[in-house]
Amino acid sequence: MAEHSRDPDALFALALGGDRSSLARLVSLVERGGDAARTISRLAYPRSGEAYTIGVTGAPGAGKSTLTNALIGHLLTLELDVAVLAIDPSSPFSGGAILGDRVRMQDHATDAGVFIRSMATRGHLGGLSLATPEAIRLLDAVGWRRIVVETVGVGQVEVDIAARADTTVVVVNPGWGDSVQASKAGLMEIADVFVINKADRAGVLQTQRDLEMMLDLSGAAGDGWRPPIVTTVATELAGTAPMWQAIVDHRRFMSDSGELEVKRSVRVGEELQAIVARRLELRARELCTGRRWEQLGERLARRDIDPWTAADEVLHPVGA
Amino acid sequence: MAEHSRDPDALFALALGGDRSSLARLVSLVERGGDAARTISRLAYPRSGEAYTIGVTGAPGAGKSTLTNALIGHLLTLELDVAVLAIDPSSPFSGGAILGDRVRMQDHATDAGVFIRSMATRGHLGGLSLATPEAIRLLDAVGWRRIVVETVGVGQVEVDIAARADTTVVVVNPGWGDSVQASKAGLMEIADVFVINKADRAGVLQTQRDLEMMLDLSGAAGDGWRPPIVTTVATELAGTAPMWQAIVDHRRFMSDSGELEVKRSVRVGEELQAIVARRLELRARELCTGRRWEQLGERLARRDIDPWTAADEVLHPVGA
Repeated sequence: MAEHSRDPDALFALALGGDRSSLARLVSLVERGGDAARTISRLAYPRSGEAYTIGVTGAPGAGKSTLTNALIGHLLTLELDVAVLAIDPSSPFSGGAILGDRVRMQDHATDAGVFIRSMATRGHLGGLSLATPEAIRLLDAVGWRRIVVETVGVGQVEVDIAARADTTVVVVNPGWGDSVQASKAGLMEIADVFVINKADRAGVLQTQRDLEMMLDLSGAAGDGWRPPIVTTVATELAGTAPMWQAIVDHRRFMSDSGELEVKRSVRVGEELQAIVARRLELRARELCTGRRWEQLGERLARRDIDPWTAADEVLHPVGA
Repeated sequence: MAEHSRDPDALFALALGGDRSSLARLVSLVERGGDAARTISRLAYPRSGEAYTIGVTGAPGAGKSTLTNALIGHLLTLELDVAVLAIDPSSPFSGGAILGDRVRMQDHATDAGVFIRSMATRGHLGGLSLATPEAIRLLDAVGWRRIVVETVGVGQVEVDIAARADTTVVVVNPGWGDSVQASKAGLMEIADVFVINKADRAGVLQTQRDLEMMLDLSGAAGDGWRPPIVTTVATELAGTAPMWQAIVDHRRFMSDSGELEVKRSVRVGEELQAIVARRLELRARELCTGRRWEQLGERLARRDIDPWTAADEVLHPVGA
């Protein structure tokens, strides 16, 4: 491999031609944020919109990575390629974030039809919630048509990232119904497909019944889609085909009903709002430093001015 | 009582003269936020700065309200007056928020040297974290020299409110050391005085030892103050005098060391930052609505523009 330019435009051209090393580097630049990330965003956005995104989430230890690995294997037998972004810090894929591009820990990392990358925030000012959609658009723009985003189902940011995929797969284990988890209700809400992984363990039927009951209570299918429940034993590659079928069914439902377009439009609007809020937050931090800020502090201490009037003075330059 | 004007200036003049009904009304206006709250803030700020604030916090059921009630009784025997703001939604004082000014549920609500008011957010745009310091300044400005703010020690906002008092009292019960609570570390961090209430129950010594050990581990007293541990049985008014003494000791330490001035200066700076951030957030919401926003959404959907460039357009009017 020839030595790479670090210039995002050059890297993007190479990645469009299929060069994975350039693509990996672009993902790193997106993680880091800043001007390079903005350039990549500008390059990728007009070319994106073709990929179908699949979020895979669930509690730590549910077997999300093993399941993703099994799904990759299944897609390869169907001659379908797939890119994976692993956001889950407990995922073995996350080795990638530490080892850079030398992802070694999974079966399919070097297969031609697979691109696997771990995401970390590094320097991106908007954190994962802004960096992830940018990375997805980048993969989309250079030609990946199926993108799996694996996040741990703990923490609002991680759950939101999975929820924003076109199809969200929630992975649970037998006995999940009994467990008390603050995040359980949140996961119920975002699931388009349920997977009971480790289905060779006791309690599968009970977990199925619990999930069905929770779906009944939540009024699922009010919008025409009731999340199917698939059982898998990912370590033995069992159940992967029905799981993919459930995803394909949901995808067809989303396209046919017009909901895919609506969901994507809402998603990009939310992303824009998040960017606006984040930029204003950074602006507020800038405004709340420096000599002028210190002088306001002194005037407050002398009680020459009250905090709301002081805020008026701070905000005057931005008309807020 | 003559019929009151709703004009904040007139109410403030009456409250300065000692009229409690006007003061209660002003607190309500502060809760509601908006222009009246800003007027009150402007009136109160230059006259404030004399009161000493005491935060009382702890898990629900720790007995914070009973303890506050016992403390009020003790202060009355010392001929010291005290105002109480009850933020804890589980507090019996909160009856006040529901019953308006007809607080009936405690021993001292109608004593001359006591003013008790429950706080709710109602319409204040900054929520409790901005409304509470304004209410404190109001009480301060009209002459209350000791202000107790009781909050439940669950939730970042509530803990922060108690932590911003001059002296923060953390109320625990025997057995607290064993309990697994996410908020425990946060409460350890903010305590200036520990009270083990319900000390007639088993496990007091163990809880004392646990607290001492946690204080050792946290390196408390590195700044010259190690939180004392007081035991009380608030329902029997036992231990109230030592509790008050611990507060007075901390107050003297804060004044003598100069830390009180530093803490208050940091506090008003943080409040100003919070106001600035909140105002920018509201501005962002304004910017993310309307026809111009919709047009941007359409351009995004057509991929004429990427989200970051769209954010530039949104933020142009505020220079952020």
